[in-house]
Amino acid sequence: MVRHRAPMEDACRAPRPDNLGMGAYDWLSFTTDYGEADGFVAACRGVIARIAPNVRVIDVSHQVPAQDVRRGAGVLAQTVPWLPPSVHLAVVDPGVGTARRGVCIVAGESVLVGPDNGVLLPAADVLGGPCEAYELEDPKYWLSNVSATFHGRDIFAPVAAHLSTGVEPAALGRALPTDSLARPAAPIVAVGVARIEAEVQAVDGFGNVQLAATASDLAAAGLVQGSALTVNMRRTARRALLGETFGDVGHGELVVYVDSANYVAIAVNGGSAAAALGVRTGDTLLVAAA
Amino acid sequence: MVRHRAPMEDACRAPRPDNLGMGAYDWLSFTTDYGEADGFVAACRGVIARIAPNVRVIDVSHQVPAQDVRRGAGVLAQTVPWLPPSVHLAVVDPGVGTARRGVCIVAGESVLVGPDNGVLLPAADVLGGPCEAYELEDPKYWLSNVSATFHGRDIFAPVAAHLSTGVEPAALGRALPTDSLARPAAPIVAVGVARIEAEVQAVDGFGNVQLAATASDLAAAGLVQGSALTVNMRRTARRALLGETFGDVGHGELVVYVDSANYVAIAVNGGSAAAALGVRTGDTLLVAAA
Amino acid sequence: MVRHRAPMEDACRAPRPDNLGMGAYDWLSFTTDYGEADGFVAACRGVIARIAPNVRVIDVSHQVPAQDVRRGAGVLAQTVPWLPPSVHLAVVDPGVGTARRGVCIVAGESVLVGPDNGVLLPAADVLGGPCEAYELEDPKYWLSNVSATFHGRDIFAPVAAHLSTGVEPAALGRALPTDSLARPAAPIVAVGVARIEAEVQAVDGFGNVQLAATASDLAAAGLVQGSALTVNMRRTARRALLGETFGDVGHGELVVYVDSANYVAIAVNGGSAAAALGVRTGDTLLVAAA
Repeated sequence: MVRHRAPMEDACRAPRPDNLGMGAYDWLSFTTDYGEADGFVAACRGVIARIAPNVRVIDVSHQVPAQDVRRGAGVLAQTVPWLPPSVHLAVVDPGVGTARRGVCIVAGESVLVGPDNGVLLPAADVLGGPCEAYELEDPKYWLSNVSATFHGRDIFAPVAAHLSTGVEPAALGRALPTDSLARPAAPIVAVGVARIEAEVQAVDGFGNVQLAATASDLAAAGLVQGSALTVNMRRTARRALLGETFGDVGHGELVVYVDSANYVAIAVNGGSAAAALGVRTGDTLLVAAA
Repeated sequence: MVRHRAPMEDACRAPRPDNLGMGAYDWLSFTTDYGEADGFVAACRGVIARIAPNVRVIDVSHQVPAQDVRRGAGVLAQTVPWLPPSVHLAVVDPGVGTARRGVCIVAGESVLVGPDNGVLLPAADVLGGPCEAYELEDPKYWLSNVSATFHGRDIFAPVAAHLSTGVEPAALGRALPTDSLARPAAPIVAVGVARIEAEVQAVDGFGNVQLAATASDLAAAGLVQGSALTVNMRRTARRALLGETFGDVGHGELVVYVDSANYVAIAVNGGSAAAALGVRTGDTLLVAAA
Repeated sequence: MVRHRAPMEDACRAPRPDNLGMGAYDWLSFTTDYGEADGFVAACRGVIARIAPNVRVIDVSHQVPAQDVRRGAGVLAQTVPWLPPSVHLAVVDPGVGTARRGVCIVAGESVLVGPDNGVLLPAADVLGGPCEAYELEDPKYWLSNVSATFHGRDIFAPVAAHLSTGVEPAALGRALPTDSLARPAAPIVAVGVARIEAEVQAVDGFGNVQLAATASDLAAAGLVQGSALTVNMRRTARRALLGETFGDVGHGELVVYVDSANYVAIAVNGGSAAAALGVRTGDTLLVAAA
């Protein structure tokens, strides 16, 4: 998960874009755990197209593991810094149809829409912190028939589309205190002298292992570029180099590096670190000076 | 599969959209079993872009199981209600290069293009029933070189692109009686007193099991919300609740519900019903009062 | 891989499109081995959207096997003939962060951008041969902070976006001799009398096996439509027919045919040839008259 930081007052005072022609937002990002096989994403795209035909959609991921709110939150938070000001629609929603709230969060120049279960807040933090939040209450911005199991299509996608056309977040429902918004549990990170113990927060498609620790944790531990390290999990220890990129070590060797999202990560040059280490998301690793 | 209904006369008389600016259709939906790894979808997208640079494409699914015409038809039929008026291009085509016809079907405000093997008709039914149909005969609307194994790229995509720019369906070839169009075999559904036996028509990415029975079959069987049920397959029986959403049962328990496409479905709260029941598409299940 | 052919002088003199309104290219194609789960593609899409909001992106594939430069090159080369004039952005980049160059290649009416490791050149060949090439040197066209492991996002995507807005390739850095560009190793193809031995260069999602041999190799071997063949691998031999499409043989039988990219391929009607033959990319097969 992305580290918390206090909302930036300036960000909260910043005007949202108002020079975008036909609507308040040209862009809408879309993150789900729906997969791309079953037409669920396309149904939402159709709902958006009917309400906001001119908005352009960037798919962040539809391959979040089923109902994995933390991973959905992490993927979105690590992607939003690179996106233009957008309506960020994110639906990983194990509680669909129950009492959990739907929310709209204003953060920086963007707005986020989805269930209030933690999937949105790390991205809001990255965008400058949540400035305002509203509960999705007014069915005027939903489809006229709402199913019990597909609020992505019936509530969240139409709300996101309406926001992109210039509907004010405050029109959607009552204001919520931003500190009432659900936040994912923080992952384990423990920094010591020449050692960092941290949770694996993601394994990417290359098998690179991303820890919850950041570049500043490395600095705090006193670990510097070029150090010989050990990577320890349960009873096994593997040698690694603290480098900058995959090619800093020989083929098949382990490198610890700061990845492109500023997290400490572990890779195997030309291979999969997850396979080499036998780790997966949620495991805890110890990285220490050799 | 979607239930048959008679073509609606009004739908057949309805004018297709004529206020769309540069072409007859702003939107084109695209469904295949090509997968997204090999560039086949992109080749079709390129063909479309050259002929109809302004049409916008919504990918319904490219992960239809290889050559599974019924599943392709089902995914498309369950998605089209949510899409804007479109050219719906669908290619699941085990008979490519043989005598099977290529067709264009006019239904409601949309047109459908693909092989005449059943992949289009359930969606046409949902859109109001097939009003007109034409065989794809005039090579003027195809690429100049047609391969024997990739009619998606060489015939269907260019025809769909031309339709989006305003080409009349009747220009494509001879008119066909709509009752000559290929229709997928109807799945098994048998409704009794307090019991429904039905074929599994789809398993989605969450492991939710969609039966061919609909909400009205539930009503006909006299099964009402809150009933205790058994779900039976071969020699095993599992307890379930007739509910509305996943959270109506405890974690790991089975719920029978009407899904977002109006079919009777079975889920495990927080898990995969397909795995729990050991079922897959084409199996037959019995849902009965406990 | 696509066969080499000499750069076409006419292609090198052809003007690139200059009638495209706001920028030099309306279209940008995008090929990577990033997968679509982790948000990496979306980060690049966001970078492109910020720099070139009007360019339209066609995803060729993001499922190139991790770090498989030859397969990435093959997918791109087989897709570009069907795309409109484009900036082709392709990133399969095992050497990211090391001394390998980033390049822009001008070919026909298109430009290609990516690492100089062979992933671009087969597509440039297909587009008419590389006419000009430039090293990516001027950081003005990159993001202001460049990570060590994600040059797709930080260098290649912004360069591609700038090119689409009309930046001249020559502005990116020093001119490179086109014969200095990295080229993938040529696959094995040996043509004899009534026999072709060739490497498997791809297996598609249907299990169709594409050899490195082309239609003209078939002709050179004297093999003609309707011939009875054997397909041999290691100690096994299977009977096949030299046909045009899948339906030319019975269900479950092998057909050898010229595929839609003009390569010799092997399919099983209604099944997977790769599974039937037990082959994968890189294996060598012998196709011979029976």
